[in-house]
Amino acid sequence: MNGTDHKLRPIWINAHSGQVQIIDQRRLPHEMVICDLDTTDALIHAICDMAVRGAPLIGVTGAYGVYLAAREALDANDPPTAFQQRLERIRAARPTAVNLAWSVDHLRARLPRETVTPRTVAEALRLAGDIAEQEAANCRRIGEHGLHLIKAAAEKKGGGTVNILTHCNAGWLACIAYGTATAPIYVAAEQGIDVHVWVDETRPLNQGARLTAWELARQGIAHTIVTDNAGGHLMQRGLVDMVLVGTDRTTWAGDVANKIGTYLKALAARDNALPFYVALPSSTFDWHLRDGRDIPIEERDPDEVRFVYGRSGNNTIPVLVPPADSPAANPAFDITPARLVTAFITERGVCGATVEGIAGLFPDR
Amino acid sequence: MNGTDHKLRPIWINAHSGQVQIIDQRRLPHEMVICDLDTTDALIHAICDMAVRGAPLIGVTGAYGVYLAAREALDANDPPTAFQQRLERIRAARPTAVNLAWSVDHLRARLPRETVTPRTVAEALRLAGDIAEQEAANCRRIGEHGLHLIKAAAEKKGGGTVNILTHCNAGWLACIAYGTATAPIYVAAEQGIDVHVWVDETRPLNQGARLTAWELARQGIAHTIVTDNAGGHLMQRGLVDMVLVGTDRTTWAGDVANKIGTYLKALAARDNALPFYVALPSSTFDWHLRDGRDIPIEERDPDEVRFVYGRSGNNTIPVLVPPADSPAANPAFDITPARLVTAFITERGVCGATVEGIAGLFPDR
Repeated sequence: MNGTDHKLRPIWINAHSGQVQIIDQRRLPHEMVICDLDTTDALIHAICDMAVRGAPLIGVTGAYGVYLAAREALDANDPPTAFQQRLERIRAARPTAVNLAWSVDHLRARLPRETVTPRTVAEALRLAGDIAEQEAANCRRIGEHGLHLIKAAAEKKGGGTVNILTHCNAGWLACIAYGTATAPIYVAAEQGIDVHVWVDETRPLNQGARLTAWELARQGIAHTIVTDNAGGHLMQRGLVDMVLVGTDRTTWAGDVANKIGTYLKALAARDNALPFYVALPSSTFDWHLRDGRDIPIEERDPDEVRFVYGRSGNNTIPVLVPPADSPAANPAFDITPARLVTAFITERGVCGATVEGIAGLFPDR
Repeated sequence: MNGTDHKLRPIWINAHSGQVQIIDQRRLPHEMVICDLDTTDALIHAICDMAVRGAPLIGVTGAYGVYLAAREALDANDPPTAFQQRLERIRAARPTAVNLAWSVDHLRARLPRETVTPRTVAEALRLAGDIAEQEAANCRRIGEHGLHLIKAAAEKKGGGTVNILTHCNAGWLACIAYGTATAPIYVAAEQGIDVHVWVDETRPLNQGARLTAWELARQGIAHTIVTDNAGGHLMQRGLVDMVLVGTDRTTWAGDVANKIGTYLKALAARDNALPFYVALPSSTFDWHLRDGRDIPIEERDPDEVRFVYGRSGNNTIPVLVPPADSPAANPAFDITPARLVTAFITERGVCGATVEGIAGLFPDR
């Protein structure tokens, strides 16, 4: 199973060149393009332009960015301040997901503060690899913990398909392996549980229609793409058993910043008395923030709303949907307040979206 | 002002040929194409394929369809049963909006049951025109009644822009003139009230991004297109003062069937203590239904989800977004329960979304 047997990952180091390589997720599903990231600038651009995306993957990419920055500092014989400036630029590439800042800071705290040496470079590479492996292992554990919730839903139904609605892509493409929201689905399918996934297309960049559908098809998981508008109706008609999403940043009181539109699905789940689960590795917690309203919400280019990319003949091209001079706005995330979250699925287990629930699983934070 | 000075309408009769002519709304905003509907089949196809859409306009188109069917029956010297069969086919062209069945039935009840004569044709044309004028007049009244709600919002804010979020297109393109949800906006703008409209793009067919934005730009109304995912976030940030939408069918107890996704915005409005208004002419009430769950929800072609139409160079073309073999589902409407509706704006005034509120304004039904 791709993403679960680790054969294909969204980021890796080329063993010969030492370069960072990624799947360019802007080109999926119609083209599989591998990009070399050979400079810090290229890596920052890949993050900003969403060639790589998803909170855990952005974190891992940031860690590999520290490695690239160290290589560059070594080659240029930079003073320590120039190296630190490069790290700051990586850290600021995207504002909402906390994993990016977390991983850069994690490496920075463990690397010598003096002039970069070959040993610094090697150590950065090792630390980045460790984070990647840790995220993969955490996602596997998220899958095992979440499995019980899907099993419980199957038992509650007394047989038949468990219908899970997800928003955006919180699959292995967004992580390293298994994914966060998809991990319980992959583990449940491994165990022979009959699951079907409603895939929100997830405008404006269609990560659901493009990436989640592609992932699920490769894993052989039954799924159906719907517009972001459809979830409430599906719930009203009894066609959804649970909502399962990822998160880009989660406060210690349980508020969740995730892809724009998540909040609307959480409201619909509550109105239809359905569980709304958020799957996350602990790297996605922001231990400094209590109130989700304090999470910075990235405003992206309105052209992401105005133009849609898709396949025409043999090419992937953009088409302009609204009138050419119509203004658009593009907030990329919204906040789902903790009160709408049924539970978190973490690598340490399942907990309530409350101060006590989170502190109970993570007493060491 | 287009749509308010009646210079441009979405449907009319060519004075020379007697043919029905429409703006092909599938081609907007990038192309203004006028279609001749010279047969019942062409008219049914225009309704099914959404060259014309919007509950009031579908109703008027259905009425003109009765006129075309009468012409055909006369030309073919059809027996009365064949004429009635044509009417049944028009009536069934789309299932959710009640206006279509209403207008066909309205004409049928007023036309002679015998073999069609030239007088039947003339009478059908006159009755259809009356419905069109009635809808236009009702929309103007909806605008005047709704104006007070916008004025009240402006006063409550103590100045500044009134931000109105709308979903889909309930403008003059969907009606005959003024629109339903847009009518209060157009009247408020006429009166010098500073309004700004958040336009949901309205997947899958993007009637918001394509049609509402086009209409508002022509009327000089400030507006910004957002994805359907964004409304909840905008409300959380205090950037929305009211939600204002149309409806395709409304039960006598106040449940509303409108474009898929409307329900999610109603939930968000309630969660943020914002008014959620539904504007409708009384032709949109279904006096036979109490429970919105009994309204048939049209399932449309999944390719409407999979392909997006937009401008590339000088052409409007479709692009395929998801993997070529990914399945999709396309429910076209959802039900917003009456409990989430703050008030209805009708041609007779504003009323609560309750049995009593509706019966108070329409005691004659």
